[in-house]
Amino acid sequence: MAKQTSILISILFLSLMAVVSEAQTVNDTSLTRGLMPVPTSVNWRSGRLPLTKDFAVAFTGQTDDRLRSYAFRAMRRLEGRTVLDLSREFPSNPQSAGLMIETRSTGNAVPKLGDDESYTLDISDRQARLTAPTTVGAMRGIETFLQLLEADKDGFYFQAVTITDQPRFPWRGLLIDSGRHFQPVEVLKRNLDAMAAVKLNVLHWHLTEDQGFRVESKKLPELYRMGSDGLFYSQDQIRDIIRYAADRGIRVVPEFDMPGHATSWLVSHPEIASGPGPYKIERRPGIFDPTMDPTNEKTYKLLKVFFAEMAHLFPDAYMHIGGDENEGKQWNANPAIQAFMTKKGIKSNHELQTYFNKRILPMLQKDGKVMMGWDEIFQPDLPKDVVIQSWRGQKALAEAAKQGFQGILSNGYYIDLMHPASAHYIVDPLPADSGLTPEEQKRVLGGEATMWSEWVSPETIDSRIWPRTAAIAERLWSPQSVKDVDDMYRRLAITNRRLEELGMTQIRNQPMLLRRLAQGGDIAPLQTLVSIIEPVKEYRRYQVRPQTMLSPLTGLIDAAQADAPGARTFNRAVDEMLGSVNRAGNAAKIQSMINEWKDSEAGLRIIMENSPALAEARQLAVDLVNLDRIAAEAMEALNANSTRDAAWRDQTLKSLDDIAKQKAGVQLVVVSGVRKLVNAASGGQKGS
Amino acid sequence: MAKQTSILISILFLSLMAVVSEAQTVNDTSLTRGLMPVPTSVNWRSGRLPLTKDFAVAFTGQTDDRLRSYAFRAMRRLEGRTVLDLSREFPSNPQSAGLMIETRSTGNAVPKLGDDESYTLDISDRQARLTAPTTVGAMRGIETFLQLLEADKDGFYFQAVTITDQPRFPWRGLLIDSGRHFQPVEVLKRNLDAMAAVKLNVLHWHLTEDQGFRVESKKLPELYRMGSDGLFYSQDQIRDIIRYAADRGIRVVPEFDMPGHATSWLVSHPEIASGPGPYKIERRPGIFDPTMDPTNEKTYKLLKVFFAEMAHLFPDAYMHIGGDENEGKQWNANPAIQAFMTKKGIKSNHELQTYFNKRILPMLQKDGKVMMGWDEIFQPDLPKDVVIQSWRGQKALAEAAKQGFQGILSNGYYIDLMHPASAHYIVDPLPADSGLTPEEQKRVLGGEATMWSEWVSPETIDSRIWPRTAAIAERLWSPQSVKDVDDMYRRLAITNRRLEELGMTQIRNQPMLLRRLAQGGDIAPLQTLVSIIEPVKEYRRYQVRPQTMLSPLTGLIDAAQADAPGARTFNRAVDEMLGSVNRAGNAAKIQSMINEWKDSEAGLRIIMENSPALAEARQLAVDLVNLDRIAAEAMEALNANSTRDAAWRDQTLKSLDDIAKQKAGVQLVVVSGVRKLVNAASGGQKGS
Repeated sequence: MAKQTSILISILFLSLMAVVSEAQTVNDTSLTRGLMPVPTSVNWRSGRLPLTKDFAVAFTGQTDDRLRSYAFRAMRRLEGRTVLDLSREFPSNPQSAGLMIETRSTGNAVPKLGDDESYTLDISDRQARLTAPTTVGAMRGIETFLQLLEADKDGFYFQAVTITDQPRFPWRGLLIDSGRHFQPVEVLKRNLDAMAAVKLNVLHWHLTEDQGFRVESKKLPELYRMGSDGLFYSQDQIRDIIRYAADRGIRVVPEFDMPGHATSWLVSHPEIASGPGPYKIERRPGIFDPTMDPTNEKTYKLLKVFFAEMAHLFPDAYMHIGGDENEGKQWNANPAIQAFMTKKGIKSNHELQTYFNKRILPMLQKDGKVMMGWDEIFQPDLPKDVVIQSWRGQKALAEAAKQGFQGILSNGYYIDLMHPASAHYIVDPLPADSGLTPEEQKRVLGGEATMWSEWVSPETIDSRIWPRTAAIAERLWSPQSVKDVDDMYRRLAITNRRLEELGMTQIRNQPMLLRRLAQGGDIAPLQTLVSIIEPVKEYRRYQVRPQTMLSPLTGLIDAAQADAPGARTFNRAVDEMLGSVNRAGNAAKIQSMINEWKDSEAGLRIIMENSPALAEARQLAVDLVNLDRIAAEAMEALNANSTRDAAWRDQTLKSLDDIAKQKAGVQLVVVSGVRKLVNAASGGQKGS
Repeated sequence: MAKQTSILISILFLSLMAVVSEAQTVNDTSLTRGLMPVPTSVNWRSGRLPLTKDFAVAFTGQTDDRLRSYAFRAMRRLEGRTVLDLSREFPSNPQSAGLMIETRSTGNAVPKLGDDESYTLDISDRQARLTAPTTVGAMRGIETFLQLLEADKDGFYFQAVTITDQPRFPWRGLLIDSGRHFQPVEVLKRNLDAMAAVKLNVLHWHLTEDQGFRVESKKLPELYRMGSDGLFYSQDQIRDIIRYAADRGIRVVPEFDMPGHATSWLVSHPEIASGPGPYKIERRPGIFDPTMDPTNEKTYKLLKVFFAEMAHLFPDAYMHIGGDENEGKQWNANPAIQAFMTKKGIKSNHELQTYFNKRILPMLQKDGKVMMGWDEIFQPDLPKDVVIQSWRGQKALAEAAKQGFQGILSNGYYIDLMHPASAHYIVDPLPADSGLTPEEQKRVLGGEATMWSEWVSPETIDSRIWPRTAAIAERLWSPQSVKDVDDMYRRLAITNRRLEELGMTQIRNQPMLLRRLAQGGDIAPLQTLVSIIEPVKEYRRYQVRPQTMLSPLTGLIDAAQADAPGARTFNRAVDEMLGSVNRAGNAAKIQSMINEWKDSEAGLRIIMENSPALAEARQLAVDLVNLDRIAAEAMEALNANSTRDAAWRDQTLKSLDDIAKQKAGVQLVVVSGVRKLVNAASGGQKGS
């Protein structure tokens, strides 16, 4: 899925929006503490409930094994943080328990869209009481409870509070693309744990792509045998993942992308293609021509067998057929398809694709499944329960809602594009100015972050999903009014660290990748560098550094992360200093970072020279020296209240333009801050 | 398995031996480069084979899928290090390939004891040629080849060399105890990869213990259902592990410990116990009384069913029945057992256990299995193919060899005891003074590192096994003459880093554990601390910091590692300086480390004060301040060539005695170096 043009425009627009300051409804950080997503209503009170080794969980009402297991695991997570031995039993007398959980009903054993996820959590200095109508609501409340654990000199404790909470949207998903890069079961499991921790409730599992057919079919085993390089999920593994997800209140919605993005199907079944074969598994990223033939009855015969099998394997009511980015080239070039269209009065490729969708629809309906697809499947005479997933944006979603269709937003949540969390955070599936009636608004079900996997391996995928997806999870759960970006980043850092306890690797794998690159050298200078570089954004990676789906993802670009923390700190200090906020403190912070860069330069040059794997990035070491010199000169002038001349400014800004250019697919993202320093030091704003 | 007394004595003896300097046969580090284990014969030549993107592997002779897959994975590891796209095809013309692999035979598809693991590797500036009689020999050679990859300004390359290599011992194992702490399949798989990387060839899988029964039995499902807390390996998973191991040339030898260490069996089958039940899964570490009843026919009826099933599940010819640490208390207390002994003329508990073993023997022989057990099963009239695993030491092993029995050594390789790699490295299964004839020597098959799992979780187990086990692997593979400890440590650091590419977590999980402990604080001061502390050794952990098998293993003691690198550097610099080796350089190094400790003190105190999980370790922050002051005073005197008086010395040494004491289960292991500084500064050697 590579929505190059439209996404580019949307993101540019969103980036502009990001600098517009938002009305801050939650501007006292102490109100939100370590909570993410922020609950609907939080009322702090005085008093605290200590966590000691006597802490235990008890239940009243209707409970099931899922809830008891969830609470059991929560206790183990508390043990891991506190190094205390906590009880493995649930006391029968709820009054004596530190946390009492009351559920009125167990709810659906396998979660369904619209399940009641609400809960209330009431913590006094004597006991915490979690009340929820269903097991899944209690799960959400347990995660909130875990986020409330704090510590100080006196020990671990929970601040007294009353929280009532419920999600703003019922569909809060993460798409994981197992097609382009296969991800082992343990990667999926740890990400399901992380999803539950931030209250996401849908794993959208993208299972077939041009680059891989990843699902075992017993009826049509040639599909995965010839289309997967041996990298597929057995049906036992799929059932295991579904159960694991259900135990965390997460639905699993499978996607089988068609009629385009289907090369891997055609390796074993060239007879259902719209153009002549043979076909090979695609290795490049991009949009490709191979497309199923909608005029061929063999296509439907095969899909009927396939969907009947998958409908029983996946319990969720929704089944995603993709439908995106079919550019119709094979259709245009095939005389038989053209003749079919003429004969049937089908006037466009879009109409032909609608014909295809309508042939598939009864295959899904037969087993009680609801069809779901990307924007392109939208067609007014489809049944109204079809769900549209929009990569085009809120307008397309609103348009569908007006025509009675349900939809979810993914435009703005493309985490593979390497935008900062702030860019995703401000995207609202249902903006205040949507112009939709309350009834239409209900059709906007939520959204999904999309982890397209062109450039992620099991070693790096966590760092591409987390922590940014937690910001999206908050957008989809919390009230619309929660949108303080600074407070989000503060809580994101806490959330990021806590995700480690679930096995996530987004923090610890970065130094590991740097150790591999440094060939035994000291990685400290590289760590300084990666704190101020980011991978190129959008779809530029392939343009500037072409690789295939088989290439190693162990370069500097793979160690670099979106939202480079050093760059964010630096650029913000520059903005504040130039805006006369804490001028002295920010000046000191800037100078200290410039010094840190300077200290890393010699070591960085040595590593770069001796590591052939870093040869592509050697210019960065040179750039850093120049950047450092320029920043130091600008700070010197600013500190002395002197003004550098225009010649210096022009030459310096020109240098910065060169420094800002990507090398090895990464960019020094502190350049924007340094540019501001240069402009300020030369008394002007030219080029800023 | 907790051989407290005997092991303690042996290790003390070995520790004394460690300080005796060894004849250094490989004292030019350039001879060994990054190789571990050091091959039998290495002849470096001039010239180098560059690694470029055109590098490929080709085969001649007899090849099988295992070898092709092994080479395929090796190519992916080279890609990960070099960030180059290498071929996924094997060219048909071997002459054009960068690495040509010639195997005369595929050998056994499932490895067997005594398989030919030899190979020769010949690298010129044109091609590398690996020749081996079997697939498994080629696997060993591929690992050597991967260890030869080097890099400099000109790129990646392999130095021209001729290597001929074969193992000194045919049995080179790692015991993983899945009984006390269950370890998931992915932990075992990544450790199998690491084992293959250092040429180990036996996974000794300890599957039943007082604390857990971890193997699925279809015939006797109550065993794992009642004895495992739900943490067991399904037979599918076991077959998967065995196949994964075989694909890496590693045998899997299962151990079912009996008649002692068997509490988990008795939970579901109290009728085969020697004392009255009921029994519960044991949660503590130690040696426990519950023992199978060797006088009860029900015992043999059950074991016959069990062994028949396991014999078919595990293909290896050897089956380990444990047999250790049965203290016979239940036997002594049971009048029926006493009557049985009297009636049968059985004079001791050891004789009764031999009776038990002899009843089991035919159950194993029926399916072609060879019995194996710990020292305690040794009894002269057992069949001569029985293998004795010795926790008692080389003498017991030699004694058995003289009587015609084969054996392997584990005494000295107990990696759970937290001794440094150097202590294990000097232990030789077949010391030069063994007094055995060549024929008897052949009966000493090798050895096994033992990862008893009282105190390891999936998060920490890699850091307890690696890198130290690589030093043991070298002892078991390389010629006896390879024993330069410094060179071993130099290569161990390289090996440690390379193990990361196989998914090992021993490096990256330490900062992760510290982040959890620091509750969001800066971990740099904690990193300084953990570089100079080590967990208490031997079996003292439980004495000073009692926990159970259910306790969280996330404390400072779990983040600390054996062989603290900062302490080794410091203590060595002290020895060298006081021995007048590079006096100025070592003095500067010592002073720099003292300064680094000093810089960490304030931050450390803040973290300790605010993290309740570190409350148990708060005294360490105080100790570090005092240690630092004492070291600085001593260095000041040494630098000034002045002598401190005896009062200062006595008081200071007394303080150091207190500082050396464990807190929170860890010890500041730089105290020994500081003590030497104090003695030198006061002109004496008292107390050193």
